[in-house]
Amino acid sequence: MPANLFAALPASPLPDELVETLAAAAGVRIERIVSTGHCSPPGFWYDQEEDEWVALLAGAAGLRFEDEAEARTLKPGDWLLIPARRRHRVDWTDAAAATVWLAVFFRRGESA
Amino acid sequence: MPANLFAALPASPLPDELVETLAAAAGVRIERIVSTGHCSPPGFWYDQEEDEWVALLAGAAGLRFEDEAEARTLKPGDWLLIPARRRHRVDWTDAAAATVWLAVFFRRGESA
Repeated sequence: MPANLFAALPASPLPDELVETLAAAAGVRIERIVSTGHCSPPGFWYDQEEDEWVALLAGAAGLRFEDEAEARTLKPGDWLLIPARRRHRVDWTDAAAATVWLAVFFRRGESA
Repeated sequence: MPANLFAALPASPLPDELVETLAAAAGVRIERIVSTGHCSPPGFWYDQEEDEWVALLAGAAGLRFEDEAEARTLKPGDWLLIPARRRHRVDWTDAAAATVWLAVFFRRGESA
């Protein structure tokens, strides 16, 4: 039977985000990430070598780009593309329920 | 603001599935597919050159592999990997509400 993106969610807060690779191949990686109130440390910015397409599937989060004044509030179904090297951080995630992200990492720059 | 996977769903059945490419790069393509009761024609099998990671996010569907006796019933959150060349078809999708698929096509065979 298929696996489910909303299965095996932690019942209580975890010390770290739960990151699981669902599929991977040369140049692409699909991850489920579960946050339980996690946010990026103060002053920390992700600065990734890969492009990231990410959707929030459950919960809620504030995603901040360094080049934007305010965090974007994400609700279930919201998705966006984070180009490589666009610095960003997670200001907050829902403290009351698990936040489920689906992330696809890839390298746009690679040749076909 | 971000786009939303559950936005702009058709209010009534469409003649064809609604397929939108959300992101694409060399060797990877992310699509939202909306079915409104669509199924594969009798005797038709998908026989794809690419690997497909697919999740059902809303609605319901019956996904049949040629090498399995019965269709798998998919509910929201269910996901699976369909390897290239594994023949499959969609036996049915929910006739009463939109079925939303998220599909990531990629080529596992390509070199890193």
